[in-house]
Formats: sequence, structure tokens, C-alpha cells
Amino acid sequence: MILYDYWRSSAAFRVRIALALKGVAVERRFVHLTRDGGEQRRPDYRAKNPQALVPALELDDGRVLTQSLAIIDYLETILPEPRLTPSDPILAARARAAALTVACEIHPLGNLRVAEYLARELGLGDEAIARWRRHWIVTGFEAIEAMIEPAPFCFGATPTIADICLAPQVFNAQRFGVAPDAFPNIRAAAAACAAHPAFIAAHPSAQPDAE
Amino acid sequence: MILYDYWRSSAAFRVRIALALKGVAVERRFVHLTRDGGEQRRPDYRAKNPQALVPALELDDGRVLTQSLAIIDYLETILPEPRLTPSDPILAARARAAALTVACEIHPLGNLRVAEYLARELGLGDEAIARWRRHWIVTGFEAIEAMIEPAPFCFGATPTIADICLAPQVFNAQRFGVAPDAFPNIRAAAAACAAHPAFIAAHPSAQPDAE
Repeated sequence: MILYDYWRSSAAFRVRIALALKGVAVERRFVHLTRDGGEQRRPDYRAKNPQALVPALELDDGRVLTQSLAIIDYLETILPEPRLTPSDPILAARARAAALTVACEIHPLGNLRVAEYLARELGLGDEAIARWRRHWIVTGFEAIEAMIEPAPFCFGATPTIADICLAPQVFNAQRFGVAPDAFPNIRAAAAACAAHPAFIAAHPSAQPDAE
Repeated sequence: MILYDYWRSSAAFRVRIALALKGVAVERRFVHLTRDGGEQRRPDYRAKNPQALVPALELDDGRVLTQSLAIIDYLETILPEPRLTPSDPILAARARAAALTVACEIHPLGNLRVAEYLARELGLGDEAIARWRRHWIVTGFEAIEAMIEPAPFCFGATPTIADICLAPQVFNAQRFGVAPDAFPNIRAAAAACAAHPAFIAAHPSAQPDAE
């Protein structure tokens, strides 16, 4: 399989964590999101992923899967162990809800193309864009803080889809000046992730294309 | 089970469709998102759902599930038939990717609290907010148009999670002045949904709290 990847994309970071947890080695192709107007917008990449986003996972038969959470569910189906969603249906729903709070309530509002729109179409400066990002991170973290019960991961002794989404968002939050100090549950889960080999291997700073 | 619902919420609309497809009757409580500063922000509702969003599904034992896609996955687990995700893992990943494109790339940018921020914090007028919403709908629809192959639903003869997310987004798009005419695949899938009894029963205009 080939992972189309970018070190600082938190959606790609999620898939790297899942692959590391499952112990799957993949070929990597790096798509630089800000160089030359964004390599993700090139026709050859758009032919792989019409959304022009990373990550994308190309299977051995050439078919391409997109959307990080759909890719992770696919990996969970073809490689069930270790589980990334709890076996208890209610716990699974809670882990998914925490993951989706990151993926649907925080991440979409802070990503690159939204920042580009705010700057280009609405004339916002860097500080106003940073304030926007921090607002949605804090709003989402307030919700997640009440949803998780770290022990030490979000939903128990092993990482789940919730940790896979939360750790990259905490990394992003720190980049934009939101420290997790006000969120003790998030801070605890993030600390557990930071010490786990799969999260260490998947961390943006450990990637070959890191700048 | 009790569904905390609001007729015009497209995330609640998704859960209503899934419940109708599964043939599950639930008690309904209506949370008016714009009356009195938003009933979803009241302490009694926040105690159910700290995110202060609809929908939420309260189980018979009082536990509460949040996030529409997590609720739908829970329903899929406890009531496997009819399936809302294709049994083929790759087709399932594609259906989920289309669903997530709505849920992560379009819907979060157009929802009520984002519009409130644009108006209150950035001083945007109604036309600039409408242009913002249309921009993200069109961007997302361009991606989805290339991801689905209606036959007549997004991924075959029966509705999947992709249709469950797409139909409410098409309804929303029309509200904000994006006609699906430029997107023949989306238009075809939306037409199939519009004729399906579960989608008809779940439609905003058919809800008791519709205005």
C-alpha cells in the first residue's frame, strides 16, 4: 500500500498512528501542502484523490481510499488486531464520538484551506486567523474534556480511535498557542499517547519530510 | 430511547433517516436551536450533551450518545439489518469517505455556531455568510461528485451512510442557494433519497417542530 502523506497534516498523522498500531508497513509518497501552490492540487494527485487533501491510501490493486477515519475503519476491518474501537458498543460509540468531535468540530475549522479563505476572501490577518483557530480548538476541547475518562488513554488501557484523533489535535493546538493545561483529561490522555511507540513513530517531527 | 432533535439540524436529520431505515421508533424531545439564545445551551441539555449540539440519543438506561455518525454506527451494531454500510470493505470505506466528506468538509463550516462567529466576531453580513456557506458546499460537492456512482443511491440499490449524510446536505444546499444541477451524480442520488419512505419521514418539513 502507498500512503500519500504530509508530515504536518493532522489527518495524515491519524493514519500514520493507526498503521503503526496495526504494525503495517507502507510505501510513502509526500505531498507538500504549501509548496508551489500546494502539490495536492496537481492533476496527478487529484486523479488519486479528487478532494485534493491528504491522506490517501492507495491499495495494491491501485484503488485509492480517502478520508482518514474511513481509511482507519478499513484497516480495522482487514486487520482487526489490535482493536482501535472498543468491543463494547456503547464504549465504541463514545470513542467514535470523541474522535468525531475532533474530526468534525475542530479540525475542519482550522485546516489550511479555511485559513486561506479567511486571509484571501475575508482579509483576515495572522492574529485574527490564530484567534479563530484557538476559538474552535477551545470549544471542542471543552466538549472532549467532558467526554473522556483517561485510564491512561481516552477510553482505557490501550489507544482507541479517540486517542488517534486527539493526539494530533493536541499537537496542532500547541502550534496555535492552546496549551492543554486547562483540560486535565486531555492532558493526561495526550501524555499517555506521547509515550507510546506508535504515536512517537507517527509524530510529525519524526517524518522524513519534516522541515 | 429518546432522540434530542431539531427539525432543521442536518446532523439530526441523518439520525432520523437511520432510525427510519432500521425501523426503530423513539421518543422525541425537541431542542430549539435559535429560540431564547438556543435551548441547546441550557444547563439541563448540556448535562445530557456537553457539546451543546443536537442530535443526542438517550438510551433506556439513561446513558447518552452524541455525534450523529457515532450514533448511526451504534445503531448499525445493535440492529445490523438493513445494513447502512456496504459489506465489501472497500465499498464500505468509499461510502464512509463520502459521508465524512459531508460531515467533516462541508457541514462544520456551514453550521449555526460558525455563522454566529462570522457575524459577531468578524462582522460579516448575511450575504458574505451565505457566500462562505456556498463556497464550502460547492467545494465539497465537487469532491463528492467524483466519489459516488449512483445506482440509484450513492453506492448501489439501497441507501448507505453516504446517502444518509448527502440528502440532508442537499436540503441545506438548496436553502443556501446551491442547486444540485451542476452535480448530476449528487442530483441523481438525492432524487432516489427524496422518493424513499425513510427519507420522506425524516425530512425537516415532516417534523412536529417544523416552523
